[in-house]
Amino acid sequence: MKFSKMFIPTTKETPNDATLPSHRFLIRGGFISAQGAGLYNFMPLGKIVLEKIRNIVKEELDNAECNEVQLGFVTPMELWDASGRSAKMGPEMVRLKDRKGNDFVLSPTNEEAMVELVKNRITSYKDLPVNLYQINTKFRDEARPRFGLMRGREFLMKDGYSFHASHEDMMREFDLMEETYKKIFTRLGLEFRVVEADSGAIGGTGSKEFMVLADSGEDTIVVCKGCEYGANIEAAIREKRDVKSEKIELDTKKVLTENLTSIDEVSDFLGVKPSQTIKAVIKKAIYEDGEKVVVFFVRGDDELEETKAANTVNALELIDADEEDIKEAGLVAGYVGPFGLDEGVEFVIDNELKDETVMVCGANEEDYHHTGMDLSGLENLKYGDLTAVQEGDKCSCCGGELHYTKGIEAGHIFQLGTVYSQPLDAKFLDANGKAQPFIMGTYGIGVSRLVAAVIEQNHDEKGCIWSRATAPYSVNIIISNAKKEEELNAGVQIYEELKSAGVEVILDDRVNARFGFKMSDFELIGFPYAVLVGKKLQEGSVEIVDRKTLEKTEVPLSEVSKHILALLG
Amino acid sequence: MKFSKMFIPTTKETPNDATLPSHRFLIRGGFISAQGAGLYNFMPLGKIVLEKIRNIVKEELDNAECNEVQLGFVTPMELWDASGRSAKMGPEMVRLKDRKGNDFVLSPTNEEAMVELVKNRITSYKDLPVNLYQINTKFRDEARPRFGLMRGREFLMKDGYSFHASHEDMMREFDLMEETYKKIFTRLGLEFRVVEADSGAIGGTGSKEFMVLADSGEDTIVVCKGCEYGANIEAAIREKRDVKSEKIELDTKKVLTENLTSIDEVSDFLGVKPSQTIKAVIKKAIYEDGEKVVVFFVRGDDELEETKAANTVNALELIDADEEDIKEAGLVAGYVGPFGLDEGVEFVIDNELKDETVMVCGANEEDYHHTGMDLSGLENLKYGDLTAVQEGDKCSCCGGELHYTKGIEAGHIFQLGTVYSQPLDAKFLDANGKAQPFIMGTYGIGVSRLVAAVIEQNHDEKGCIWSRATAPYSVNIIISNAKKEEELNAGVQIYEELKSAGVEVILDDRVNARFGFKMSDFELIGFPYAVLVGKKLQEGSVEIVDRKTLEKTEVPLSEVSKHILALLG
Repeated sequence: MKFSKMFIPTTKETPNDATLPSHRFLIRGGFISAQGAGLYNFMPLGKIVLEKIRNIVKEELDNAECNEVQLGFVTPMELWDASGRSAKMGPEMVRLKDRKGNDFVLSPTNEEAMVELVKNRITSYKDLPVNLYQINTKFRDEARPRFGLMRGREFLMKDGYSFHASHEDMMREFDLMEETYKKIFTRLGLEFRVVEADSGAIGGTGSKEFMVLADSGEDTIVVCKGCEYGANIEAAIREKRDVKSEKIELDTKKVLTENLTSIDEVSDFLGVKPSQTIKAVIKKAIYEDGEKVVVFFVRGDDELEETKAANTVNALELIDADEEDIKEAGLVAGYVGPFGLDEGVEFVIDNELKDETVMVCGANEEDYHHTGMDLSGLENLKYGDLTAVQEGDKCSCCGGELHYTKGIEAGHIFQLGTVYSQPLDAKFLDANGKAQPFIMGTYGIGVSRLVAAVIEQNHDEKGCIWSRATAPYSVNIIISNAKKEEELNAGVQIYEELKSAGVEVILDDRVNARFGFKMSDFELIGFPYAVLVGKKLQEGSVEIVDRKTLEKTEVPLSEVSKHILALLG
Repeated sequence: MKFSKMFIPTTKETPNDATLPSHRFLIRGGFISAQGAGLYNFMPLGKIVLEKIRNIVKEELDNAECNEVQLGFVTPMELWDASGRSAKMGPEMVRLKDRKGNDFVLSPTNEEAMVELVKNRITSYKDLPVNLYQINTKFRDEARPRFGLMRGREFLMKDGYSFHASHEDMMREFDLMEETYKKIFTRLGLEFRVVEADSGAIGGTGSKEFMVLADSGEDTIVVCKGCEYGANIEAAIREKRDVKSEKIELDTKKVLTENLTSIDEVSDFLGVKPSQTIKAVIKKAIYEDGEKVVVFFVRGDDELEETKAANTVNALELIDADEEDIKEAGLVAGYVGPFGLDEGVEFVIDNELKDETVMVCGANEEDYHHTGMDLSGLENLKYGDLTAVQEGDKCSCCGGELHYTKGIEAGHIFQLGTVYSQPLDAKFLDANGKAQPFIMGTYGIGVSRLVAAVIEQNHDEKGCIWSRATAPYSVNIIISNAKKEEELNAGVQIYEELKSAGVEVILDDRVNARFGFKMSDFELIGFPYAVLVGKKLQEGSVEIVDRKTLEKTEVPLSEVSKHILALLG
């Protein structure tokens, strides 16, 4: 391809709302343009990148014997009524009416339509399993569309759905998809982690996220320095902390702790470490049909992880309880403890406090705490995993040190079970001739988000640095002055040579652009290599520039192709 | 690919609304499924066909140096307000609001968005021309969605838009696109005609349609038996008829023709051929801001072509005038003629009546006609092309015989000029530094419609017959009884051989389907060839079936690949 034949409108202007490097550089490099908030057009270079990513996703899924389909983007509301999601999906799901007044939805995801596609078309266990996927437009009317392609409203997503006769077979496919996704992200040239994740709104029994590591990632992930373990902070676990050595002996008694309501104040006053205390976190749990106050008890120096905590009480989410809520629940703020709570109060204790002894906790009475308390003495307690893993905690797999990193969620795989097949009455006959709902898995990749993720992970202050597999062209031949016949001819010669060697190459043959302008376009756009055809030509040589390091290497004109082919491996 | 690994839900059930073969067979063959009126899902086989067509379209456009882009499907209403089309587009354009109450549109076409993309990004004639295209979802809320993929509401369309500094350059690109489209339709293996067309709602100065010939086509097209000429009936022209020999001498006078209001009655009474008479067709021309009565005069034995007639008076459309309209306009029904009409009456005369002599026409007086009238005597007349070409008329290119055929509109190219760039204020600086609106062309292909068009043109009573380039797989190896190890092994061996020879092959290895069932699936789905691995295997041979003719050829097992490769050329 030649620059002179391609629409590549690079610009120095940075959009006001572009805080992320990928947003800034993709706009400035002429890859995308905004058509409205969260609505993007792919310009020629951006479209090439998008298709490269789409093709890699497709190839690996096809290798894993998945079948590509394409569902309608505009879906009838009936589908969403049938699954019960038309009520659950908030304003993110855009509704519309056709000319006859019938209700439709712009697909934010496609579980319902995919179940409908298979229902009554697969009727026997003999025709299972099947894994159907599409790479298609989705629309989610985000409250705050931002970060360019990272959190747009209209986006390209790969969504796959598998159907099985047994849980075991679904688990086999889940593992296959994990391997397949690893291949995809590896081929894309990305540094990533597969992490345990919370299943969230989609539901189901287990899920993993594929996190592209980048400082700008919106998600905090916990990874182990010693092994492969990784998890979203919402799902991370650690080896149980051993705090025995930090403890001191304490009598079992009620002590006056006037005006001492924080863990630090109480610990200081009693001369114990915070790890010997129990912290009460009072929250309001929100449900579809109401709310209630719940107390969560964690070790004094641990922090509550709200998603984990919400899951222990099956709440949609937790919000802070205010003074009035606390009073109404019969709780004494600052002095809440697990012993002697009113019977009506619901509470959950962190797993790590199980059977703890000589602990300090609130006495459920203004200005008093208990000391030397033994949790193993309490009966019928509800325990759960409530704490947020912290940096420095130990890995439960290998004992290594855990630390935080930032990631961009670019893939997510779920064990769905019968969450959709059951309400949609999608069944097959098993080996005994009995009708059973399909056991399902679902698997997503944010295809257009990956365009941005590649750049979040790979850029410098000058612009994009595309990985080999995602670069729109591998090599950019820059003719310093295209009016000079000698330079033009040499450039075209290299261009033709590389093209016939199968290299994806673009020739910057623009007559009206100066060398400096072409060079900064190269740096902004971020092709992996450039070949500079300029003044060195008189000495029979050109320069090869590596976009990553910006290092230049002089090579004889006759050896350019050999060098480039060696670099591209 | 193996049948056992693919979701191919063929069925004997025909949908109630499926009147066209393509609709019936694509549903029955497991290519598509309906998700709602005019909304279709592509199942695995259908998706493969769709992608094959998409790829051919893309390859040829890329060869012609077009740049692929991808615009947002949900477009802001402002774009349509700016061009004035938000008012013009009827209920076919679906409107919706986002969560903030802003207005959006599901793209029915993308002239506005594409002009917006180029505006201010291309500022000089030096960066022209450019031809940008996308292959993307469109939505048109048809009043009567029908015929399956032929007239759906959500569909896949290739829409391209070119931008030029001069009319000449746009015409060069228009011709290039005509050639490119011809290559595309030829590669798809379709019989088609390029026909002159009316430009319709898109506007502009000229357009051509690409018609896939098929009995079920909704469009009547006029083609020449002697040359390449073809035109939509709305745009067809013919060699001027020579009717001199049919005429007789007549005095110039007013004659009583009491109660004789039709051409036949008057001709009979006067002893002339209808070709010597002038027929008046009274219509009401509809405009954006009103309507008026217009009289169109054509030769007595010609028919008015309404689109042509509407174009001569720049009307949106013509509707029949009723008695009241006619009276109000001061016209005498049955006796209207071009001589002595009230001054306020607007009329147009067909080009072929120019300078005609000794004609019969209404006298604009109840019960009277004029005879022997000379049109060359009339001044300040408005002439235009008003007549519908009829079968048997002569071709204006070669004098050959014209006849009618039916076609499916699968492509349409337009010379747009400045119809959109002008109102959207999209300009470039010309060589003199003067701002000029872009001269544009636009080019469409109905990509998903082509899936149906291939089948409308290529089917029999048993099912689909895919062309080589569109077939989901070229060869279907049918194992008669997959429980017999010998048959299974032979089938797998042929499968592997053909695969490694680069043939797109599918193996019907289903254990629980009988031979007859597999054979009728082959006929229904319509792969070009099948290899039957069955009882002949004992004699060391298999049969090759040609889907088109259903003829079987016995070949030795060792020579299957050779034969298949020869057939596939």
